[in-house]
Amino acid sequence: MKILDLIIKKRDGYKLSKEEIDFFIKGVTDGSIPDYQTSAMLMAIYFNGLDSDETTDLTLAMANSGKIFDLSSVSGIKVDKHSTGGVADTTTLILAPLIASLGLPVIKMSGKGLGFSGGTQDKLNSIPNFNVDIDENHAIEYAKKSNIVLMSQNKDLTPADKKLYELRDVTGTVESLPLIASSIMSKKISAGADAIVLDVKCGSGAFMKNYDNAKALAEIMVSIGKKCGRNVCAVITDMSQPLGNYIGNSLEVIEAIEVLKGNVKGDLLDVTLELGANMLILGKKATTKEEALKMLQENIANKKALEKFRELIIQQQGNPDIIDDYSLLPQTKESFDIISEKDGYVFETKASLIGRGSVETGAGRTYKEQELDYGAGIIIKKRIGDRVKKGDVLATIYSSTEEKCILASKFVSEAIEIKSEKPNKPKLILDTIA
Amino acid sequence: MKILDLIIKKRDGYKLSKEEIDFFIKGVTDGSIPDYQTSAMLMAIYFNGLDSDETTDLTLAMANSGKIFDLSSVSGIKVDKHSTGGVADTTTLILAPLIASLGLPVIKMSGKGLGFSGGTQDKLNSIPNFNVDIDENHAIEYAKKSNIVLMSQNKDLTPADKKLYELRDVTGTVESLPLIASSIMSKKISAGADAIVLDVKCGSGAFMKNYDNAKALAEIMVSIGKKCGRNVCAVITDMSQPLGNYIGNSLEVIEAIEVLKGNVKGDLLDVTLELGANMLILGKKATTKEEALKMLQENIANKKALEKFRELIIQQQGNPDIIDDYSLLPQTKESFDIISEKDGYVFETKASLIGRGSVETGAGRTYKEQELDYGAGIIIKKRIGDRVKKGDVLATIYSSTEEKCILASKFVSEAIEIKSEKPNKPKLILDTIA
Repeated sequence: MKILDLIIKKRDGYKLSKEEIDFFIKGVTDGSIPDYQTSAMLMAIYFNGLDSDETTDLTLAMANSGKIFDLSSVSGIKVDKHSTGGVADTTTLILAPLIASLGLPVIKMSGKGLGFSGGTQDKLNSIPNFNVDIDENHAIEYAKKSNIVLMSQNKDLTPADKKLYELRDVTGTVESLPLIASSIMSKKISAGADAIVLDVKCGSGAFMKNYDNAKALAEIMVSIGKKCGRNVCAVITDMSQPLGNYIGNSLEVIEAIEVLKGNVKGDLLDVTLELGANMLILGKKATTKEEALKMLQENIANKKALEKFRELIIQQQGNPDIIDDYSLLPQTKESFDIISEKDGYVFETKASLIGRGSVETGAGRTYKEQELDYGAGIIIKKRIGDRVKKGDVLATIYSSTEEKCILASKFVSEAIEIKSEKPNKPKLILDTIA
Repeated sequence: MKILDLIIKKRDGYKLSKEEIDFFIKGVTDGSIPDYQTSAMLMAIYFNGLDSDETTDLTLAMANSGKIFDLSSVSGIKVDKHSTGGVADTTTLILAPLIASLGLPVIKMSGKGLGFSGGTQDKLNSIPNFNVDIDENHAIEYAKKSNIVLMSQNKDLTPADKKLYELRDVTGTVESLPLIASSIMSKKISAGADAIVLDVKCGSGAFMKNYDNAKALAEIMVSIGKKCGRNVCAVITDMSQPLGNYIGNSLEVIEAIEVLKGNVKGDLLDVTLELGANMLILGKKATTKEEALKMLQENIANKKALEKFRELIIQQQGNPDIIDDYSLLPQTKESFDIISEKDGYVFETKASLIGRGSVETGAGRTYKEQELDYGAGIIIKKRIGDRVKKGDVLATIYSSTEEKCILASKFVSEAIEIKSEKPNKPKLILDTIA
């Protein structure tokens, strides 16, 4: 088999066999296929796509390119969740302890943020001394004890996906549905969970800007998961405005704790409950959505989820006192209020620009190796549909210098549009694909 | 400017500006753009094409990526010719001395063969001691003296094209009309001629398998040439069967000499005269085709073209005695006749399979560094439309071993189809684009 023949085959619109895809991924993994041929193949895939079989074969080949976590010694249905990434999407920090507190093991790997999209690993790293680098043995030990592990992406998993993702990032081949779907699903499958709930974000602050693309991605991923023997469903949720009101690493930890304390209502809680209900159903802890929602609300009200979060922090060597004293989390020296210049309604809060502003504060990265300012970020004070008066604070920027605050404020000011007419609130839960 | 943005721009179907194409080619030339990004760009171009402006800009950028030959000190209109490559296409060896003998300077660079397509440089190298590695100063000196120089592609010319061609060859991006056209034209423009006659081959033994593609390529190249201030025309000629009857390096030298001696009529001579007439007209030595053809035929009949070929060989340190004694050229030990198994007509002689058989004899390359057997090859004894009887020799294979002869004979036997019905001869000159 020759990679050149396979590039030409895909270029000409033909379907690649399982053997051909295995050959491609083996060559990517062991380095026998040079990057220039891999990137040509990726661009051919960008143009001609991969059908459902090819995408599944690619997913499995990438999952099998490295270690696959064996969680069989942990009893119960292991449930995982994955968000395609957005702004102020701190659901994982709430859901993992909440679901674990209801008796389902949650062993979740997370990545770092890049661009407007935050990463759970960065948020966890804002908790003093919290250790995200957990190996397989410790993950299993922790899961058996506490039902919960939140860890960084294990370096031995899906080396082919890492290689392909790095190349896609610099060759204009990121925005390909089958490549996105197989990248996500290969990581989820190698991470060893039995059931996976996918949160496919849709809107300006997400990778998928419109519903049709989001739905197509959701359908491909659910199909891959099922073909790979996993129990999978996908929820399509709005990302036209930031999901929560806190953007930044320690800021999102604070908002997650506030939700676990029962102090926060609204979109962030609603999406968390929707995803959580699906996790409980896939994990066979509930049979109806109503039942599941009740269980979730109960474990917030009785603080069991919050205590599970405390247990997680202690287990992973972090300082649990942050739960009761947010001043123990990283903070910034400077802050800057964005003031409304007129009366009206918040008509739009473009998540992409808020995300961009957040990067300017130091909370996000523009390149992979960039150091973060864990305390930096933005708090949104008004959401779409809220009435505002001239002089009201629309948002507050937090950063290490006044200069950075001002730079970030330009994006945030541009993001928030005030109009005299009252807008319809964006629909939060757009669809569920099972 | 960032190459990633340009890849995405082309991927999304937008037009690249002259500045953007210059940036791309500069980066390819100086190595600042890595191969994996270049190959992604090439695949994006494969799918979305380049318009006429972009193709011209790419051609000029590649021509300007290295040295441009300055032939202004050679008086007269310098005419060049280029064939897109085929089987038994030895027109250059005939045309160069023929045109030079009529007073027009021909300073022609040629490449090596690869796959089914032969290369003039290899044919010249089969002449004992013939030196093809001529530098610019010697080329000018020779041209002033004899009007003729046949040389290898100068290494300082079009480095960007070399780099792109190498990558295209291994990334499935060879078959792109604008990339083919700009590659050819950048070399022609950097070689310094004022006027260029292009022979665009069309058929199974050519790069362009059908007339529409050949015509499209011809039109693009003529358009580029004109935009670059060159006087250009293209002749589309048949390559469904080999042009001449001799395939192989010393064999094609022999057939060229036979044409120059006036001993050979038929397709090879007809295409040579057609191209030659266009060269004379572009070179302002003739005003009508009839006049030009008469001049060409005269200089074959009076042996002036043959003597110019002798002058060329002497000038470039080769052994001119080969003209009168072909046994001084490399020969093979073994030969093998392909015999007709039935009566009928030669219905088809697939040039691609003959070319493939020729590679098996040792006359051609399957990879770049491959050593050639200069004496090896094939002589076709019957052409399409010829009557054959059972037992007639259809072709003779020449190679170093019996084994290679037999291997080659399989392709040649498959190439030549005998049927009871008499076919129409393929049309030789399909079109002229000026």
